[in-house]
Amino acid sequence: MGSEEFLEFVKEQDLPFLKDWLSTQPPHAIAAELVRVDAAGMALVFRLLDKGKALAVFEELDPSDQQAILEGLRDRAFRELVEEMDPDDRARLIGEVPAKVARRVLAGLSPYERQMTAALLGYPEGSVGRIMTPEVVVIHRNLTAADAIDVIRTKGGSAETVYTLPVVDDGRKLVGVASLRDLVTADRDELVDALAEKDYVSVRATDEAEYAARLMREANLLDLPIVDSEDRVLGFLTIDDAMEVVEAADTEDVYRQSGSEPLAGAYLLAGIRTLASRRAPWLLLLFVAAILTINVLDVFEENLAEVTALALFIPMITGAGGNTGAQSSTAVVRALALSDVRPRDLPRVLWREARVGAFLGLTLAMAGIGVGMMFADFDLALVVAIALLAVCTWAAIVGGSMPLLAKKLGIDPAVVSAPMVTTLVDATGLVIYFTTARIVLGI
Amino acid sequence: MGSEEFLEFVKEQDLPFLKDWLSTQPPHAIAAELVRVDAAGMALVFRLLDKGKALAVFEELDPSDQQAILEGLRDRAFRELVEEMDPDDRARLIGEVPAKVARRVLAGLSPYERQMTAALLGYPEGSVGRIMTPEVVVIHRNLTAADAIDVIRTKGGSAETVYTLPVVDDGRKLVGVASLRDLVTADRDELVDALAEKDYVSVRATDEAEYAARLMREANLLDLPIVDSEDRVLGFLTIDDAMEVVEAADTEDVYRQSGSEPLAGAYLLAGIRTLASRRAPWLLLLFVAAILTINVLDVFEENLAEVTALALFIPMITGAGGNTGAQSSTAVVRALALSDVRPRDLPRVLWREARVGAFLGLTLAMAGIGVGMMFADFDLALVVAIALLAVCTWAAIVGGSMPLLAKKLGIDPAVVSAPMVTTLVDATGLVIYFTTARIVLGI
Repeated sequence: MGSEEFLEFVKEQDLPFLKDWLSTQPPHAIAAELVRVDAAGMALVFRLLDKGKALAVFEELDPSDQQAILEGLRDRAFRELVEEMDPDDRARLIGEVPAKVARRVLAGLSPYERQMTAALLGYPEGSVGRIMTPEVVVIHRNLTAADAIDVIRTKGGSAETVYTLPVVDDGRKLVGVASLRDLVTADRDELVDALAEKDYVSVRATDEAEYAARLMREANLLDLPIVDSEDRVLGFLTIDDAMEVVEAADTEDVYRQSGSEPLAGAYLLAGIRTLASRRAPWLLLLFVAAILTINVLDVFEENLAEVTALALFIPMITGAGGNTGAQSSTAVVRALALSDVRPRDLPRVLWREARVGAFLGLTLAMAGIGVGMMFADFDLALVVAIALLAVCTWAAIVGGSMPLLAKKLGIDPAVVSAPMVTTLVDATGLVIYFTTARIVLGI
Repeated sequence: MGSEEFLEFVKEQDLPFLKDWLSTQPPHAIAAELVRVDAAGMALVFRLLDKGKALAVFEELDPSDQQAILEGLRDRAFRELVEEMDPDDRARLIGEVPAKVARRVLAGLSPYERQMTAALLGYPEGSVGRIMTPEVVVIHRNLTAADAIDVIRTKGGSAETVYTLPVVDDGRKLVGVASLRDLVTADRDELVDALAEKDYVSVRATDEAEYAARLMREANLLDLPIVDSEDRVLGFLTIDDAMEVVEAADTEDVYRQSGSEPLAGAYLLAGIRTLASRRAPWLLLLFVAAILTINVLDVFEENLAEVTALALFIPMITGAGGNTGAQSSTAVVRALALSDVRPRDLPRVLWREARVGAFLGLTLAMAGIGVGMMFADFDLALVVAIALLAVCTWAAIVGGSMPLLAKKLGIDPAVVSAPMVTTLVDATGLVIYFTTARIVLGI
């Protein structure tokens, strides 16, 4: 059955057929289909799943989509579901849903699970402590490899991973990291202390989650130990959670760079009002900023009245400036996200972008002479060409430096988005264009 | 030592100091600093590393940055380095460097390593076969858990991972997937066949790498088995490689959406000419498309000459349309990348975006009345408001549908980038604006 049919069957509430389909699909495939039906259909399908699979499907969903399902469940099913969730997934859910739903989740938990979740919620939002898995098996440095494997056999049941094992001293202080692979292939009597990697990477629970996640990718780790201020082991960031953090951060950047706030859940599940509410504030802000362009044109209105043909090239020149600025800001925002560039590289980036912008401006200026001659005389074509060169250079400088300045000021560089740079460059570009016209045309 | 100083010491060629610093840093940290110095400095630092660490640092770099290092090495060091690389990393390097460098790499390899790399290079570019690790330990279904662990002890040395183990029948056909965790915690005599997960996910070697990588994230896998057309095990896609594939794909999307081709290596390492060459073709294409706007304005030049004030609002209206279109196209491109939306959702997406666009247009229209009155009379303000409503609705429809149409035609949806939509909406937006003006103002 294709997923087109799936939507049909949900609409027709063909339960036997749906049940059959659900039993043949892996959890992630079911989750992928669920986010494409509406909230009511999602709740319907979800109730058809058997308990174990329901949990697996549930854990594949984003918190805002999880919320839609929870709201459709009766108390008992609700409690069973949240009780079985991993503590880190649960903390993520609670952190992102409205307070009312969060309280209902916490109220439904057993004391043990509630305590574990509360501990995670104690860390600041966006910190790695909030999304770490606290259920880890630690190994004392004085154990042998065989002893360590016994510890894993007895205590490893509830742990999310046993492939990376924090090696600790008497005070639960992290002194190294052992891999299950090394433990399995080592001699039975070899000491864990000798097997452990001492050159390990770890982060504090209060460190930023995105930083920790990108660090894992750079250092190629499956699990990153999380410690407190005295190096005692608190938990792990696992690679699957790290991947989600990176993907969510990338999604946020992508949205911000197009001048809108990111969507929390799946696109098709979000209501029209939600979609509009993510975009409207940015759009209004940019609209207000665009009043600048009217002011500029107002100042030069006499020149416009005298040479109406000047107006012909306005969209082309602001467009070229906007595009050049957007290219520069995007390159720098992405380089910042990947740690290829840091705020203190500002002078280098400025100098690079100025040259790139000048080169691009020169290319467009040559094309612009031709285009200008097609629609106007040589003098005006010359104005267009000079303006293109100057505007592109200026746009590249602005686009390249604004993300770095934002980062220095502690603002998300992606906020200095392409449309933001574009709007700014629109107004200044017009000043450049008309000033050039006044000088060259003598008006 | 901070990284600011690192750059200084590289410039001054302070070798003892550099050596000391290199010995205290983990490979990923060294790699992160290396991409911030120039090619000559990079080669200098690299030669100071001891052999084992050099390899680890080298494997952290992007192929284009690896190439810069290779070109600075003498033959013997060159050969030793490429011989020690993982086959999948080596295939990736060869696939991305110029043919001359690729031949030098292949010529330096031992027959065994050359054969392994050649096998990967036989798969099409962008396929998962190209980046899989072929060095896997397979376990026969009839072994016991204890036997399986013995196989891992003896054969696992060269494997990239032993945490996921393909379980095969006599013909090396995949019949299930076992985890080392289950093998370690099971009874010694339990059969692997009983321990193996039969509901596993696998992909063909010819499948797209990005598809496989995103599948791993969705299904929360550490290793994804890669099979041939007859289900025989060929290798694994490991999670760290999958993360790189996803990150590279995201980078590509981000660049394309700002109207430029992605950069292969680190931003600061790329030359000015490289940067410009990624951006110039797009910029020129958009520039040519912008000629449309001149044509439109040329058609309406009489109206412009009559009511010069019409020109005042051109950048604001095209800007609003461009921003709305960019928001829509970005949301849809990202939803496509995350598989939240599929091409056949076009009618649903169209209807959603039309409503969102109309709502946003209405919001801007109300603001536009006020702004219009500030700079012109009520009639012109009305024109601006009506045009804003129509342009925003139209822009959201265009921005939302173009990525889906592109995907249907087999074009990368990100190519239908924000600037592309913006440029298109600029011209059509002007037609809407002036037509409205003609009707309302009766000119």
